[in-house]
Amino acid sequence: MPDQPLRPRVVILGAGFGGLSVARGLAREPVEVLVVDRRNHHLFQPLLYQVATAAVSPADVAWPVRQIVGRQPNTQVVMADATGIDLARRVVATSAGEIPYDTLVVACGVSHSYWGQDGWAAHAPGLKTIDDATHVRTRILTAFERAEVEEDVAARRRLLTFVVVGGGPTGVEMAGAVAEVARDALARDFKRIDPRSARIILAEAGPRILPVFPEPLSAYAQRALERMGVEVLTGRRVTAVDAGGVRLDEEEIAAEVIIWGAGVAAPALIRALPGDHDRSGRVLVAPDLSLPGHPEVFVVGDAAQVVDAKGVAVPGVAPAAKQMGRHVARVLAARLAGSTAPPPFAYRHAGDLATIGRNAAVVRIGRVSLTGFLAWLFWSLAHIYFLIGMRNRLLVATHWAWIYLTRQRGARLITGEDAPRS
Amino acid sequence: MPDQPLRPRVVILGAGFGGLSVARGLAREPVEVLVVDRRNHHLFQPLLYQVATAAVSPADVAWPVRQIVGRQPNTQVVMADATGIDLARRVVATSAGEIPYDTLVVACGVSHSYWGQDGWAAHAPGLKTIDDATHVRTRILTAFERAEVEEDVAARRRLLTFVVVGGGPTGVEMAGAVAEVARDALARDFKRIDPRSARIILAEAGPRILPVFPEPLSAYAQRALERMGVEVLTGRRVTAVDAGGVRLDEEEIAAEVIIWGAGVAAPALIRALPGDHDRSGRVLVAPDLSLPGHPEVFVVGDAAQVVDAKGVAVPGVAPAAKQMGRHVARVLAARLAGSTAPPPFAYRHAGDLATIGRNAAVVRIGRVSLTGFLAWLFWSLAHIYFLIGMRNRLLVATHWAWIYLTRQRGARLITGEDAPRS
Repeated sequence: MPDQPLRPRVVILGAGFGGLSVARGLAREPVEVLVVDRRNHHLFQPLLYQVATAAVSPADVAWPVRQIVGRQPNTQVVMADATGIDLARRVVATSAGEIPYDTLVVACGVSHSYWGQDGWAAHAPGLKTIDDATHVRTRILTAFERAEVEEDVAARRRLLTFVVVGGGPTGVEMAGAVAEVARDALARDFKRIDPRSARIILAEAGPRILPVFPEPLSAYAQRALERMGVEVLTGRRVTAVDAGGVRLDEEEIAAEVIIWGAGVAAPALIRALPGDHDRSGRVLVAPDLSLPGHPEVFVVGDAAQVVDAKGVAVPGVAPAAKQMGRHVARVLAARLAGSTAPPPFAYRHAGDLATIGRNAAVVRIGRVSLTGFLAWLFWSLAHIYFLIGMRNRLLVATHWAWIYLTRQRGARLITGEDAPRS
Repeated sequence: MPDQPLRPRVVILGAGFGGLSVARGLAREPVEVLVVDRRNHHLFQPLLYQVATAAVSPADVAWPVRQIVGRQPNTQVVMADATGIDLARRVVATSAGEIPYDTLVVACGVSHSYWGQDGWAAHAPGLKTIDDATHVRTRILTAFERAEVEEDVAARRRLLTFVVVGGGPTGVEMAGAVAEVARDALARDFKRIDPRSARIILAEAGPRILPVFPEPLSAYAQRALERMGVEVLTGRRVTAVDAGGVRLDEEEIAAEVIIWGAGVAAPALIRALPGDHDRSGRVLVAPDLSLPGHPEVFVVGDAAQVVDAKGVAVPGVAPAAKQMGRHVARVLAARLAGSTAPPPFAYRHAGDLATIGRNAAVVRIGRVSLTGFLAWLFWSLAHIYFLIGMRNRLLVATHWAWIYLTRQRGARLITGEDAPRS
């Protein structure tokens, strides 16, 4: 489908932080850019848990890809599912037909890993897409509704037990938000149950939550969660998940809602690439982020396993994906200009942020640690800042101000075919 | 599930405009009120077409029922599907078990009528629920995405043909909004198709659109739609609908997206009630809105067929449902107080409003007719005013201001299992 067949074509698989950075970086280069994604929107994943906990609406944390890069004169957007890469023929197979490339950038991200137990997925959804988030939202809100009409005490107890698996930032933020839903937003709305009595468990296999933070910040986060009524269980491994609940080591916990925030796995597209892969299936890339032996193929973002020029293993976070994207755009620009290649990719770690709830967060930037209200304010402003476009900033800020002032969450919708009927 | 078994129990089926008016009207009465709805949210249906056309988010036009009436001390909310009414035993069968009543108010609304052709529903979705609206949004946006990668000219033409069936306010508002999506919001975002070339058809079986308005307003609305590029086909009856498109009388129109805004049918719950029903299955009620022969059962809202004290057939609109709800609350209050019953229900028609698009609407209040910008401003302010709660007013006003200034629609999300993949 070339419109300008004389320019080399750069095909980018994935419109996440990595893929869009490449596309933006190539806006003025003499190439034809094709961004391929199976969805029509770019998602601000750091706030997806807020959709799942009824704080903001899906459209507030997502943007049409076409609105972001579709207006660049050299860029086309194709909504299609990439199903295979033929490196020899330099062609991507997609649901919209074959797309030939001169340069390929694979920026497709990762999905959840259930450690080979794929049967767990149906009972313990994770958070990667808008549909994941509205599904989890429906499950959480429906659990309270069903508990309200449940006569059996044990069954009611099970309906009001929520287990979040994984003590990274996503798990911590999710557990804190579920606690706020139960203790603030729903507290006065039920007559027969007390939503504040809900049991919320955060299970982490390692010795402490938020392991990427210094130990004092982990301890602060645990205390803050416990003050909100969350049981933090560290050193506890999930050994089974089914419709009735979850098993942590030997202990069975009857729970209606289990949310998965542990482990990632690279998709089949990445696993099928030649070269070295780590245990999660991520592919090892060269110092310029190209696929070893294939200078015309790059991998950026969470699916790339990168040890950068300083020997640092690059983490799977949004700023890293953006930096990789910009680096690939610079490498390609240098090639097009015939100038010398830029130095190998070097990751600049800006810092780590995680929020726990109202007035509670942890921030680590360089050697500076922040906790409490200041950290929470910093987290809030940083996330508003990184949202794309004034409209979404305005809407998210409105939602947050409303929640802060009233403790009410406005997006309490039970929707979808999966909304239970009893 | 009685908490206060000594007070008479009023069970209200449905948390729409009618049901909630009854519940609010009973807030201070010595009764136990139970509001039963299969969804957890009240929906502002007049703006549902704006969800379907990516202008606002679902949560902006919906509110948790618990937030509206769940805090009234005498009111419980039950999320359950009512499946049958046993008038002899005075019990409602629901997915959450049997619920006995002393007084029953049926306020369950109506669904679409496909004139007995139930096979049409899959190809021509209507707009009654949030899920309907996000499904239609996905279909509309996906049609443009698929057209962008379609090589075949006829297939592309079909993908860019949109048919709205029914020339009432919903159909007119929907056709106008689809035209704005194609001509404003998407115009600059595609490279291979021109969204402005989309064919948008509004098909009405009667001689003119907006038949409840005076003839000059119908003519104005038709001219306004035509200026926006909508083909208005009056006197054209749908004779077939399938996956390929729609047949209007003898003419086959190949279309990807067909939206149904024609005809209503009362649900099985209403059809099963004894007494006279009209062709749509709505049940004829007594002057006090009770079911003839059953003074303990009332029917309010769209599912009630009411000829009021002045001989006026009450239309199926939100203000009528609210008035009916308030009337039933007054009748019940009088019974509880042992005072004389209020006079028979008399409908007060406030007026008719319909919007066509940017700066174009029709308003009829008494003998006053408005068109154009003034009518559009009036329509906008009235709808903001009738939204429940400051939060949603703020959010919808923000969305509208944004769209008015930028012509961009922010909620352009393709979501759901039904999002086509090719």
